[in-house]
Amino acid sequence: MDTYNDEVYGRARVKGNAELDAYYEKLGKLDAGALWTVANDIEPWEPRPNSVPMLWKYDELRPLVMDATTLVTPEQAGRRVVYLINKKRADVKAACGWLFSGLQVTLPGESTPAHRHRASALRFIMEGSGGYTIVDGHKISLEVNDFVITPNSAWHEHGVEKEGKTCIWQDGLDIPLVNALEANDYAVLPESGQKQLFPTDYSPSMYAGSGLIPADPQWNKPYSPLFRYSWKSTYAALLKAAEVSPGSPFDGIILHYSNPLTGGPVMQTMAASMQLLRPSEHTKAHKHTGSVVYQCAKGSGYSVINGKRFNWKERDIFCVPSWHYHEHANNSETEDACLFSFNDFPTISKLGLYQEKVYPGTNGFQPIEEE
Amino acid sequence: MDTYNDEVYGRARVKGNAELDAYYEKLGKLDAGALWTVANDIEPWEPRPNSVPMLWKYDELRPLVMDATTLVTPEQAGRRVVYLINKKRADVKAACGWLFSGLQVTLPGESTPAHRHRASALRFIMEGSGGYTIVDGHKISLEVNDFVITPNSAWHEHGVEKEGKTCIWQDGLDIPLVNALEANDYAVLPESGQKQLFPTDYSPSMYAGSGLIPADPQWNKPYSPLFRYSWKSTYAALLKAAEVSPGSPFDGIILHYSNPLTGGPVMQTMAASMQLLRPSEHTKAHKHTGSVVYQCAKGSGYSVINGKRFNWKERDIFCVPSWHYHEHANNSETEDACLFSFNDFPTISKLGLYQEKVYPGTNGFQPIEEE
Amino acid sequence: MDTYNDEVYGRARVKGNAELDAYYEKLGKLDAGALWTVANDIEPWEPRPNSVPMLWKYDELRPLVMDATTLVTPEQAGRRVVYLINKKRADVKAACGWLFSGLQVTLPGESTPAHRHRASALRFIMEGSGGYTIVDGHKISLEVNDFVITPNSAWHEHGVEKEGKTCIWQDGLDIPLVNALEANDYAVLPESGQKQLFPTDYSPSMYAGSGLIPADPQWNKPYSPLFRYSWKSTYAALLKAAEVSPGSPFDGIILHYSNPLTGGPVMQTMAASMQLLRPSEHTKAHKHTGSVVYQCAKGSGYSVINGKRFNWKERDIFCVPSWHYHEHANNSETEDACLFSFNDFPTISKLGLYQEKVYPGTNGFQPIEEE
Amino acid sequence: MDTYNDEVYGRARVKGNAELDAYYEKLGKLDAGALWTVANDIEPWEPRPNSVPMLWKYDELRPLVMDATTLVTPEQAGRRVVYLINKKRADVKAACGWLFSGLQVTLPGESTPAHRHRASALRFIMEGSGGYTIVDGHKISLEVNDFVITPNSAWHEHGVEKEGKTCIWQDGLDIPLVNALEANDYAVLPESGQKQLFPTDYSPSMYAGSGLIPADPQWNKPYSPLFRYSWKSTYAALLKAAEVSPGSPFDGIILHYSNPLTGGPVMQTMAASMQLLRPSEHTKAHKHTGSVVYQCAKGSGYSVINGKRFNWKERDIFCVPSWHYHEHANNSETEDACLFSFNDFPTISKLGLYQEKVYPGTNGFQPIEEE
Repeated sequence: MDTYNDEVYGRARVKGNAELDAYYEKLGKLDAGALWTVANDIEPWEPRPNSVPMLWKYDELRPLVMDATTLVTPEQAGRRVVYLINKKRADVKAACGWLFSGLQVTLPGESTPAHRHRASALRFIMEGSGGYTIVDGHKISLEVNDFVITPNSAWHEHGVEKEGKTCIWQDGLDIPLVNALEANDYAVLPESGQKQLFPTDYSPSMYAGSGLIPADPQWNKPYSPLFRYSWKSTYAALLKAAEVSPGSPFDGIILHYSNPLTGGPVMQTMAASMQLLRPSEHTKAHKHTGSVVYQCAKGSGYSVINGKRFNWKERDIFCVPSWHYHEHANNSETEDACLFSFNDFPTISKLGLYQEKVYPGTNGFQPIEEE
Repeated sequence: MDTYNDEVYGRARVKGNAELDAYYEKLGKLDAGALWTVANDIEPWEPRPNSVPMLWKYDELRPLVMDATTLVTPEQAGRRVVYLINKKRADVKAACGWLFSGLQVTLPGESTPAHRHRASALRFIMEGSGGYTIVDGHKISLEVNDFVITPNSAWHEHGVEKEGKTCIWQDGLDIPLVNALEANDYAVLPESGQKQLFPTDYSPSMYAGSGLIPADPQWNKPYSPLFRYSWKSTYAALLKAAEVSPGSPFDGIILHYSNPLTGGPVMQTMAASMQLLRPSEHTKAHKHTGSVVYQCAKGSGYSVINGKRFNWKERDIFCVPSWHYHEHANNSETEDACLFSFNDFPTISKLGLYQEKVYPGTNGFQPIEEE
Repeated sequence: MDTYNDEVYGRARVKGNAELDAYYEKLGKLDAGALWTVANDIEPWEPRPNSVPMLWKYDELRPLVMDATTLVTPEQAGRRVVYLINKKRADVKAACGWLFSGLQVTLPGESTPAHRHRASALRFIMEGSGGYTIVDGHKISLEVNDFVITPNSAWHEHGVEKEGKTCIWQDGLDIPLVNALEANDYAVLPESGQKQLFPTDYSPSMYAGSGLIPADPQWNKPYSPLFRYSWKSTYAALLKAAEVSPGSPFDGIILHYSNPLTGGPVMQTMAASMQLLRPSEHTKAHKHTGSVVYQCAKGSGYSVINGKRFNWKERDIFCVPSWHYHEHANNSETEDACLFSFNDFPTISKLGLYQEKVYPGTNGFQPIEEE
Repeated sequence: MDTYNDEVYGRARVKGNAELDAYYEKLGKLDAGALWTVANDIEPWEPRPNSVPMLWKYDELRPLVMDATTLVTPEQAGRRVVYLINKKRADVKAACGWLFSGLQVTLPGESTPAHRHRASALRFIMEGSGGYTIVDGHKISLEVNDFVITPNSAWHEHGVEKEGKTCIWQDGLDIPLVNALEANDYAVLPESGQKQLFPTDYSPSMYAGSGLIPADPQWNKPYSPLFRYSWKSTYAALLKAAEVSPGSPFDGIILHYSNPLTGGPVMQTMAASMQLLRPSEHTKAHKHTGSVVYQCAKGSGYSVINGKRFNWKERDIFCVPSWHYHEHANNSETEDACLFSFNDFPTISKLGLYQEKVYPGTNGFQPIEEE
């Protein structure tokens, strides 16, 4: 929409000639270059995204995810995960920007090896029952639409109780980012795994007190002491908020999963939110730096991302890359729709790189491109 | 228990004589003095409390509180409050240390003038229904055992709906502290009072989400955006915590009312907590700097404060002054007991003045003095 | 200047009668009172100061301070200090508000016992040479107009080298505040004193680097790691600032002694500043909450405090109580004048109690009362 | 040195077969993949660097940098900069990791267009006189070995006064990082450039006060208000520190350029340090995450980086990539040597990704590889 002119004062406007070519060659031999030959490229007028918007339909993916249960075991695979590949980020194994995402499937009675890595992880439970995770000695039980964190360098392992039902959850990790920053590492525990150091669900029992927190002088970690945010209290909070708030023009009723000791995001590099679109709600378009991966947790609708429409229903996953205009719509005139999402806003914000821009069109909605 | 000797090296040990007396007189004329004549007094070996422990029985106070409804109106009195006087702090109108406390009574259909002051206030609801407070345009509904804040310099007014029942609540304020620090002020609004700027219960609807918080870029106040902590969720949180935690040796299961954006106390000068003593629980004794005013919110029991026993039951109020050993006991073998309390720990801690000491007796309990 | 009316809606306006008197008596027996009988007093319209402005002339005090060297030894007195008494704060031994101040004198070769207390201390060197302080194992050398801190609960002792000259310095402490908050304590070391743990002047050598700080992972104290701010660099900084800044209308060129790791005040309860009044500069009047004790470090001039003029010259000490209008003037048309000051602003600000008000008179100056 | 085995429990150990190949192909069609085929690669046991250590000799580069003055003008080039290319990072124009570095040359009387970008920049002055930069209306004068910042999104332009001498300085920017995070932007001002809003050198005059800071309520930027750190005070601080400190085993006497309001790094993404190696000092080897670009500011010596020796003297530039062992040695037995460096530690640390490891060899030094 904006037009920029690289011929203005303040941009690199050097015309090539033979003398310069000879000069550039001499520079190259010294492992150097002339900034003006690349300046306009590495200093774009606006943020330049490296991913494309995509949608993964659960109807299509789920059978393949289930196939994995007959092909490999967690013991062989480390984790039995089908991961999502952004068409422009296959080289770094990212679903969007520097975010990894995958679908992990675990059969009743199975459990994964215990390991840890510098990368941070989060999970959003899609189906099944009796799932659990063990994070630094905390065993946490999981139900559908629960959100759970396994922070950077925390020992973790997962499983499904024998009497449970096959669980599928979405993993979100910052592995691509941590590799890009040359900082990932990995360690394993023996097959015996972690010792459970706390009663099951200690963390959510102590820290999900609606504004009350325990006197816990030991907590000095850089992430939330609340490891699980249950769907039950999350959805109740959304409904409560919808009673009194008009919501955000761009997101409807949106709540952020929060570290109750800081009010900040749950982990150092990634944040997560749950939003509710009221019946027939259609939000306005805006764009911002930072990448977002969404999963529809309830209902159905569509999003328009840089002019392209993506239809989604429960369990579908889609992504909005950095600096892409996006708006969301709830299809139903009677039911609400809920979108879970995770993002790299903490990374972007801490580094001073967050900005947003409201879509300048007259009514705030993008025209939808013909396919 | 500790013995200290003012004759040791490092204490003021100057013997008086006539020459010194003459010298002191000369100093006095210049508005000066010799430090060594007062040093041992103003530099005590251990913290020196200025209050005494006290208990106010609700059975005794309630009739007088009700009498006030026939004697004065809120319009005449500003607020119809009976305040509690520590025997050693009558000069500063404090219930304990620098904390003010009173019982406010409001009849159905009554409301108070809207005002504000630099001092901070909190309320704990004791009886009645249909009570409400309006804080900076936020109308908040109140039920028994709810905890609500009206922070420093926020406009506030209270009332009881016409269809409600007479409400009594405990007020807690730092008025004595703020006066001692020469900083209190006061302002009034006309009789029309505040305009309600938000839907009723906006604040608890948005911020009591068990770890989820709204995207609210406007909040830049130095106190909690969560104005009411309901008894329902507070008691549920205590029971949850009791399932997984052994609790504190000194306080049983204790949770702090917390600013969800910081994990810190609800206001800048005062904090508040709710604790649950399990059936027959008798906590160990310790002492600390800072003053605490308690109200029994549920059940009955007793506390031993510097060797003196104070029996309490629902709605009784008592105080533990700074640096007094104290322990709490639940009388019942079957029911839990709950103690609400507020304190000046934020003040004490921010100034680097908090310390505590475990009671050194063999089993951790104090011997009880005969009356 | 402001007029307030206690007969307005929102203030306590209950007229007395016999029935009420009987009621108050009944309340008194239960250690309770009616708030409306005291409300207007404990909730003043504006901050109500408890101190009066005062000035102590060094010409008068110095001879008495020197007399102390013949009357008591540091070994007998603990510290050989003449302390300053505000006429309205003699009960709490304060020079102003809750701040203690005194003049300490030490002869060459003398040293004080090593001790510590919860109260915080600071010193401003007035005369002499070869003075030093030892704070938590750090030996710090002192010169005239240097500012040095001995923070809360840090072991400290002072002395003058044998080859030095008799030292007099001003002590500033928050003893009255810490006693009022029931939190002071005291401990002594044996006569052998502290062991020097760091090379002399380690702290200023490492931390006074004009924006450069050492990699010192050990520092986790709630106060500045920079223990001494030398007059040489302080005065140089004032002159630099005066070259480029118009200064503050109320304070001229003013710089705050700062914790280089936080940008905040040097200690948790007290802050200190140095200001320079340019030749003939006369600042505008304002008032604020918080108490300030000044010492003239250079030059001469006068201050007008709530309409009263106080003339000062080098080494004179004066105080500005909370919520008193004040303005400062440099007498000289050719020389600058410098005022050192310390205050309780950190206490006041952390508790949300700071406010200020510009003098509303037409030209910003107060009329001076006739004596 | 460490050996890791990908055949252990907890690593992906799935053997390939035709059935799996068919499965992978089906996944690929849905833009998905099997994590276990890439897991061991994207989850390395230890941080995996993407750059190689390199050294750029000023003797070689300087003539080409000077040649640029005859080939292009700042007006044509935007900025007349020769940039340094890491052999493994040519694709992102980085000197090391995600850090850009270049040498900018400006003739007397020249100035650059005023522009701004989301990327942050810093400069270290190598030669010349009369150089200046204008940052958000602050004109700052520059001398050799001064360090100056032009933070993210601050308007900036540079120049050399007509009576000055040709200036060369090293630029350091996080352009590669900000592009990788899809967040860079750019804007230009007209040829008239910025208006100078403050007296020249206002910032260093106000904020380089050795622990004293101005009362400047306006400062709300996420970077240091101190824009220039002069060599004079930096070198004096190093000498002071060397008098009292043994220094770091890995870095000798090292000081960090610091934001005086936070004690933290000067900008949000990059930090900078100056270190002094005493005569004949040879530091021990360690490695850490994060990338560092060095310039020798004084003296000569060599560094051993992952076993390879790099000799440097004044003005040479070299880099230490993430997770490379490195040690530094001063060649001279009589003169000290100083290394300026900048790095991305703030980025790495805020994201929870910093770790370090001491070289485990017996004496702490690496064996040097034969070329």
